[in-house]
Amino acid sequence: MRPGPPQGCLITLEGIEGAGKSTQCETLVATLAELGIPFLQTREPGGSPIAERIRALLLDPEQEGLCAQAELLLIFAARAEHLAQSVRPALEAGTWVLSDRFTDASFAYQGGGRGISAESIAGLETLVQGALRPDLTFLFDLPAELGLKRAKARADLDRFEAETLGFFERARQVYLQRAKLDPARFRVLDATQDVEQVARHVREALVDFVARRPFSGQ
Amino acid sequence: MRPGPPQGCLITLEGIEGAGKSTQCETLVATLAELGIPFLQTREPGGSPIAERIRALLLDPEQEGLCAQAELLLIFAARAEHLAQSVRPALEAGTWVLSDRFTDASFAYQGGGRGISAESIAGLETLVQGALRPDLTFLFDLPAELGLKRAKARADLDRFEAETLGFFERARQVYLQRAKLDPARFRVLDATQDVEQVARHVREALVDFVARRPFSGQ
Ligand SMILES: Nc1ncnc2c1ncn2[C@@H]1O[C@H](COP(=O)(O)OP(=O)(O)OP(=O)(O)O)[C@@H](O)[C@H]1O
Ligand SMILES: Nc1ncnc2c1ncn2[C@@H]1O[C@H](COP(=O)(O)OP(=O)(O)OP(=O)(O)O)[C@@H](O)[C@H]1O
Ligand SMILES: [Mg+2]
Ligand SMILES: [Mg+2]
Repeated sequence: MRPGPPQGCLITLEGIEGAGKSTQCETLVATLAELGIPFLQTREPGGSPIAERIRALLLDPEQEGLCAQAELLLIFAARAEHLAQSVRPALEAGTWVLSDRFTDASFAYQGGGRGISAESIAGLETLVQGALRPDLTFLFDLPAELGLKRAKARADLDRFEAETLGFFERARQVYLQRAKLDPARFRVLDATQDVEQVARHVREALVDFVARRPFSGQ
Repeated sequence: MRPGPPQGCLITLEGIEGAGKSTQCETLVATLAELGIPFLQTREPGGSPIAERIRALLLDPEQEGLCAQAELLLIFAARAEHLAQSVRPALEAGTWVLSDRFTDASFAYQGGGRGISAESIAGLETLVQGALRPDLTFLFDLPAELGLKRAKARADLDRFEAETLGFFERARQVYLQRAKLDPARFRVLDATQDVEQVARHVREALVDFVARRPFSGQ
């Protein structure tokens, strides 16, 4: 049997509210397009029809009572759907996947923010993902205060955005720890810089990543 | 500090579709009331506002694509909410809880029916329940064919009721295995008998269970 096409890469964007993930997603989209790499742009929680229904439940500011464990399990339920319906089929077809948030956000928000143990989250990660992990993760780092200021200037707050500064500062620290433990996967960017500066770093990091891939240019 | 009131007992009703769980719930309700035991009647998936929203998603026959893992995680998300909002506060106040289905159904349906490993399910059980297990479980046992015939005569089919006979036969076998491994907790009843016969056995088993409780009659 001939080997199939090489698997696509999974690229994720991480960081607290207002860090500039969605803004810089556009930089990645433009760069992948220039490089001629076929890709699927998606987001979490969500990214498939059922997962988007779960997202609506998760972000609904009316769901004040939602307990931390139920929140965590809903996020992984949405992730299982997103992987089965969208991410895995794309990667297997050789399509790259660009996801605005992924599992690092569960460690940061449900772990750091809400205090659920990293072991519990890692157990769900293995259950739902098996060996699948992102190939490249952009972490947009900035003080929680600045991120929240940007997010608040943008629109009405969802259930997470209504959280305290302490919550997001704890989430930020977990993101930074995870990046430190896995420097091969993470690119940590200073998200306090202006949009054009951040975009330049994002573009350079992606071009560099693609150039180092075996079979790149295939 | 004076010890608080004794914890309430958790009683669960299990069995495949059409086995007579909801019908015999009434027998248990009447018997607990006669015995003067304060109780909360509830059901799974559901039993709290957010959990009922998750239930609607799970039972919706339109959600054909829902993958087995997402289904399992949604059920445990609903369970975490149900426990936090309803079951644990009741038990701690000394109120008994009567639940139409609980975690044995996850082992039977998502385990036996859908083929998810018992280890994965047990991991979620520990995550969400800690050490909490039912004190008494009624298993209404009957051939899947008869259960489905009864369920179909009743109303429109939900997403589970549209499953195959093989699915429910596998679920039934898991229920029976679990009952065999924990005879102190389970009461297995022949659900092919008529409603009055089953009700007599249910009533006797409950009266006997209450009589053997320490502090009963308190
Ligand atoms: N580098 C930047 N400097 C100043 N403002 C920025 C910068 N990047 C993004 N913004 C602005 O900050 C706001 C939040 O940015 P964006 O929506 O990209 O953040 P996000 O990380 O996707 O947030 P969320 O987690 O809430 O989705 C937007 O109004 C955006 O225009
Ligand atoms: N012992 C019995 N003999 C004959 N019919 C019964 C018996 N018990 C219940 N039924 C009937 O079978 C149907 C299903 O019963 P019931 O709704 O109590 O089952 P259930 O176990 O709660 O099912 P589900 O899992 O679908 O909720 C109802 O119409 C009920 O009246
Ligand atoms: Mg965004
Ligand atoms: Mg019923």
